[in-house]
Amino acid sequence: MTGWLAIAGLGPGADNLVTPEVSDVLAEATDIVGYIPYVARVAERPGLTLHASDNRVEVDRATHALQMAAEGKRVVVVSSGDPGVFAMAAAVFEAMEADPEAWADLDIRVLPGITAMLAASARAGAPLGHDFCAINLSDNLKPWQLIEKRLRLAAEADFAMAFYNPRSKSRPEGFARTLEVLQEACGNDRPVIFARAVSTPEEELRVVPLSQCRPEMADMRTMVLVGSSRTRIIRRAAGDIVYTPRSVT
Amino acid sequence: MTGWLAIAGLGPGADNLVTPEVSDVLAEATDIVGYIPYVARVAERPGLTLHASDNRVEVDRATHALQMAAEGKRVVVVSSGDPGVFAMAAAVFEAMEADPEAWADLDIRVLPGITAMLAASARAGAPLGHDFCAINLSDNLKPWQLIEKRLRLAAEADFAMAFYNPRSKSRPEGFARTLEVLQEACGNDRPVIFARAVSTPEEELRVVPLSQCRPEMADMRTMVLVGSSRTRIIRRAAGDIVYTPRSVT
Repeated sequence: MTGWLAIAGLGPGADNLVTPEVSDVLAEATDIVGYIPYVARVAERPGLTLHASDNRVEVDRATHALQMAAEGKRVVVVSSGDPGVFAMAAAVFEAMEADPEAWADLDIRVLPGITAMLAASARAGAPLGHDFCAINLSDNLKPWQLIEKRLRLAAEADFAMAFYNPRSKSRPEGFARTLEVLQEACGNDRPVIFARAVSTPEEELRVVPLSQCRPEMADMRTMVLVGSSRTRIIRRAAGDIVYTPRSVT
Repeated sequence: MTGWLAIAGLGPGADNLVTPEVSDVLAEATDIVGYIPYVARVAERPGLTLHASDNRVEVDRATHALQMAAEGKRVVVVSSGDPGVFAMAAAVFEAMEADPEAWADLDIRVLPGITAMLAASARAGAPLGHDFCAINLSDNLKPWQLIEKRLRLAAEADFAMAFYNPRSKSRPEGFARTLEVLQEACGNDRPVIFARAVSTPEEELRVVPLSQCRPEMADMRTMVLVGSSRTRIIRRAAGDIVYTPRSVT
């Protein structure tokens, strides 16, 4: 048996946002590797082994997946959203780079998925309809000073912004500081979207002016989107729509 | 019959990258509206009318779609990629805002898709695995000065970058200037990915150091991804991998 490794995105939560490409590879797999809640989204069946592991062991998990694929297994590493956006693809390549000769011939593929910011954007309207940036607010793997520098430059560039991992239990102060930086750099009226657990039964969407944002409006299941200076709100009986026009003129 | 309007993303090209959510809405539609090559991706069937229109008439097309939905039709506006990323969702909301009362009660939804930058990123490895930005290089709807300002600030922020619409036949000089700005701001060694027509039979992928990039390496079917200062290349017999590590330390 020739082994392979696929790093697949399961999308934000709903089954009907999983691409057929990913569903097909899950159906062919012998082994599924990933963080506990993402592995729980894969149906059990005979011949399939589920390897669920805790958060913050991404490189160990990735090395295990590489080893099983090299032994001939058909391995899928699952991420929520898209595996290339603050997720497992980079972790697998970090593990691979520690010993590139060992995996020189391995069949490895990344299969894209619907990333959280685009699912959240779709629910709100089109807040990322013009130039934008995506920033991981977790300071696990980078210093706060770099996050703050990026926030200030993104505001100066007038990008719309999408924030992943805005607020963890262990480090709640980072998001409070983020809001302070943005209130200083962007003024009070900028629309901010708090999109929690989009496409799941727990979905919640709030649109709040920047001046009224509070840190506790976000948790680790929330995507935060911040409009550019051009972002607009259409008030409608059937639901408000937030969007950024294509034109700046 | 109660009409509705869905603005749906068809993904980058392959059928197995269309989400089931989008396939389901296409199966329920009475009318499909969009740019000619995207409408051509929807199978004809009895009861379905295809309204294909040329490029650069986005707001007219959007108004027509809104009108048909208000008349009771089940209308899908199709975009390639994700409709919220430099695509039709913002155009529909621009049309709606011209007369918001007319569409105050309309059932309207945006259905996300696999956007071109994430399909391209997956093919290359994980070049967008850390903080990044997405910039539309077309200067149809914004002045070149703003594009250049954003490029310089994005380089200073050390974002990886994804460029949509890098080079049109009518304005080829913009991408040449983009490369000059980046060569000045980012140095010579930065990996640049030219990903053309990803997931279609015409797919081509090239990885080129910034110093060796030439404008003619891109056309309107090409996504261009530029690494950050941390982006790395893993050289392998089975194919090189470009990725940006999760950590900056």
